[in-house]
Amino acid sequence: MEFRSHMKRALDEARAAADRGEVPIGAVIVSPDGAEVAAAGNRTREMNDPTAHAEILALRAACAAAGSERLPGHDIYVTLEPCAMCAAAMAAARIRRIYYGAADPKSGGVAHGARVFTHPQAHHVPEVYDGIAADEAARLLREFFASRRGSGAGD
Amino acid sequence: MEFRSHMKRALDEARAAADRGEVPIGAVIVSPDGAEVAAAGNRTREMNDPTAHAEILALRAACAAAGSERLPGHDIYVTLEPCAMCAAAMAAARIRRIYYGAADPKSGGVAHGARVFTHPQAHHVPEVYDGIAADEAARLLREFFASRRGSGAGD
Repeated sequence: MEFRSHMKRALDEARAAADRGEVPIGAVIVSPDGAEVAAAGNRTREMNDPTAHAEILALRAACAAAGSERLPGHDIYVTLEPCAMCAAAMAAARIRRIYYGAADPKSGGVAHGARVFTHPQAHHVPEVYDGIAADEAARLLREFFASRRGSGAGD
Repeated sequence: MEFRSHMKRALDEARAAADRGEVPIGAVIVSPDGAEVAAAGNRTREMNDPTAHAEILALRAACAAAGSERLPGHDIYVTLEPCAMCAAAMAAARIRRIYYGAADPKSGGVAHGARVFTHPQAHHVPEVYDGIAADEAARLLREFFASRRGSGAGD
């Protein structure tokens, strides 16, 4: 199934983020013809940028490559339910479909909390498919935080 | 009053954005000691970046200058009610106070729609002060869109 291979790539980005000491979340953007046009992992610490979530970095890269602030017909694959910031950015970019892995009751903004797409202020509403490879996405996060606690790094 | 002078600077950024053909919204970030550490106007078109709202650009610049993904004790002045993306980014950056100008029933995410700070998924809730120089902020937006309609530029 094609969407599984794109999510596998997003999970690779999440693992690479963990190796950099970042919260392991990854995202991939796929063009209407099925090509992966951007892939990114979380880099908030490295970049000292609270907006440098995997989704935002992928959206910015895909827009730069397309020469457009909108990505009609493009889909995003992300390992964790997007937060309100990332969900609103996806609406602004006119993303067609969002495939995400694990639910995020603590910080999510799609199925939890702000539920960004349920308000008329979201001028575009992507289709949302959740629970794709959710177990692996959640496992990466769990292991990351467990290893940080073990090393006394804290958070 | 100090907050009026910071908002005046944000309005200058909004006017400069209009001169570049961008929707006229401006933002300024002020450090705990009262210094303006970042100022930006909207650049979504120029940068082909749907996340390049004035607030996001100012947050990123202030974080880069501070060498931190968090800005405790910092305040942001923005000419229009922030959207859900920008509001969530301000929470992530631990902004202390948000001063904004005009309300934005159409796209706002603070007092309208997603109301980002009203959910437990916002892990930090800034103090919010609205209606600062709202008339001038709204006038800039009105004139910008009227002139675009007049020129047939459309939107």
